[in-house]
Amino acid sequence: MLNIKVEKQILEGAVSKAVKAVNPRTIMPILEGMKVEVKNNTLTLVGSDKDISITSKVKEEIIVSEEGGIVVPAKEFASIVKSLPNGEVHIEVKDETKISIKAGKSNFNLNGMSVNEFPKISLGDATDSFKIEAGILANTIKKTAFAVSKMETRPVLQGVNFQNNNEELVAIATDSHRLSKVKPGVQVSFEDNFTIPAKSLKEIPSLFKKGEVTVSKAKNNIIIEGEDTVVMLRTMTDNYPDITRLIPNNDSTIVKINRTSFIESLERARILAKDDKIVTFIVSDENKGIFDTIQLKQKSTEVGVSVEDLVVNEITGEEISISFNVDYVIEALKAIDGDEVVISFGGTLQPFTILDTDTQNELQLILPVRTY
Amino acid sequence: MLNIKVEKQILEGAVSKAVKAVNPRTIMPILEGMKVEVKNNTLTLVGSDKDISITSKVKEEIIVSEEGGIVVPAKEFASIVKSLPNGEVHIEVKDETKISIKAGKSNFNLNGMSVNEFPKISLGDATDSFKIEAGILANTIKKTAFAVSKMETRPVLQGVNFQNNNEELVAIATDSHRLSKVKPGVQVSFEDNFTIPAKSLKEIPSLFKKGEVTVSKAKNNIIIEGEDTVVMLRTMTDNYPDITRLIPNNDSTIVKINRTSFIESLERARILAKDDKIVTFIVSDENKGIFDTIQLKQKSTEVGVSVEDLVVNEITGEEISISFNVDYVIEALKAIDGDEVVISFGGTLQPFTILDTDTQNELQLILPVRTY
Repeated sequence: MLNIKVEKQILEGAVSKAVKAVNPRTIMPILEGMKVEVKNNTLTLVGSDKDISITSKVKEEIIVSEEGGIVVPAKEFASIVKSLPNGEVHIEVKDETKISIKAGKSNFNLNGMSVNEFPKISLGDATDSFKIEAGILANTIKKTAFAVSKMETRPVLQGVNFQNNNEELVAIATDSHRLSKVKPGVQVSFEDNFTIPAKSLKEIPSLFKKGEVTVSKAKNNIIIEGEDTVVMLRTMTDNYPDITRLIPNNDSTIVKINRTSFIESLERARILAKDDKIVTFIVSDENKGIFDTIQLKQKSTEVGVSVEDLVVNEITGEEISISFNVDYVIEALKAIDGDEVVISFGGTLQPFTILDTDTQNELQLILPVRTY
Repeated sequence: MLNIKVEKQILEGAVSKAVKAVNPRTIMPILEGMKVEVKNNTLTLVGSDKDISITSKVKEEIIVSEEGGIVVPAKEFASIVKSLPNGEVHIEVKDETKISIKAGKSNFNLNGMSVNEFPKISLGDATDSFKIEAGILANTIKKTAFAVSKMETRPVLQGVNFQNNNEELVAIATDSHRLSKVKPGVQVSFEDNFTIPAKSLKEIPSLFKKGEVTVSKAKNNIIIEGEDTVVMLRTMTDNYPDITRLIPNNDSTIVKINRTSFIESLERARILAKDDKIVTFIVSDENKGIFDTIQLKQKSTEVGVSVEDLVVNEITGEEISISFNVDYVIEALKAIDGDEVVISFGGTLQPFTILDTDTQNELQLILPVRTY
């Protein structure tokens, strides 16, 4: 039966990954557990819920006296490992359902379950796969996942959609009031697009911090594999809506503005915008051809009103007064990396786009709000 | 009418203090406001609720064009000041109830209330006063306020009691399961002891960071005065129970142990202690005169059990097995500064005390839990 020695910090690193998949609110007690298994001189830890399964491995850094496995209470096991003093940890399975964890002068005895009870994870046939740098994957998630829908009315909008666009990866998220689209510059060959719940995707950046990962597409799952960690994510079954026709080619008013100072201005305007968070952006051209007022303000409330003159780098086109949810614009600007953004308006009631001046690979789109 | 200029960072420092007293859940709209007043070349900001009033002042660092006052919506005013760009802020009261705040290209117009509507704060006759270093006051609060009662059944136990003990200040807090007593080495001459709600006291450390403060005792209030800040705190009307007879002179078992390693051991024992958080401390002496087992463990639960052998620096006295709420002991140990503590037991059912080995000026007392 399982009997190994491993350094506390190495064990903690592996356990802290697998435990992220464990959801304590489950009606299946076995899924509150973590599978701990030693085979072929490798320690494998698996945590799962219905949407995500995380497997982390420790290969060379363990001393194996005997192979075997058990399912342990996941949250407690993770807390115990984290609390142990630095140094060697001795893990021993006593019978099929008892495990002892010893380090220093501490001795924990946990009641587990048989490893045979842990549900098998079916990987299916991974048909297509592509490689992506861990940092680029994390960035693609960060730049899209915030824009998914928080409502359960259309579940597929709670996911990020991944498409093959002329052999290039494109990631899209929308809640139908705003949309984020990122093309991270990754070659792909898969056929059907797929959608992954944003909630599961948000764990990915902390699981893969460096190096290249392989993303494989099976029938109902995506498998993301790095050096010591494998994650399986459920894909959503509903079809993702076609959003290509939503993205306009605006050019009636084009504004170039410093990204961080615009965020600061929006955050000031937000203070008095109250619950609806609606702020109005005004470009007016009283002297024909010279844009003399570029302002942010909100409807006056009981508390008061603020007006801020904006400093922009360049304006072309027509006068406009357009109102929007200030939080959507702030979040979109925060998902962009560059110093300057280009905002392209197509009229007071048309969706407008925000792009990084220096790259055409990312687009943020926001629907305005009608205020009259 | 009020018209001043002041640097953003100086204004922000003063506003951020006064706003701490403002409780947005009030039925009196005027108390959602902050009094902003300029008199004698001094800007005074006042925030209040029923238990605490905070006044902060800016003296030399303002340019006054005209004196006057207004009451502004406190939370919004604080958010606005915080959001402004660094540099000069121009504040101007337009009529009795309108204020404009300008900085850079931002212009906020707030609706306020007449300064005459703000409730007068009655300081009463401060009879006795003493001086205390801000750092010592903060430390005295930190070492006692955690131990007050969280229950509303006996309101006076939600406060920290301050006593004059032979012309020396003593601070005490208890929730009737544990007690904390600190004697910070401060000369006092006041007669009647007083009790201040811990909730209000917790704001004090962030309001006075350095220098000496003066604490004055009025009939129903305590006034704490520093260089630019004055705080008035309501005292509680109920009499504080006499706790002197609760503090035992234990000596049946005395243990000296390293404070931080004992905290780590308790935190490990806590993991499997489950909801009741009860852990048992066992000293046994099977070989008569040699304490061979000093352990921490808890009752075995569904999940499992842990046992840890403790390394202690010294033990004298008798065998003991005593159970306690592990959180109480961890919190007591964290309120102590030294490297080593002395724990004195008087028997399995007697309250035990924890003291810093090096000082007799602080005492933590904990009632054990009966487990059979």
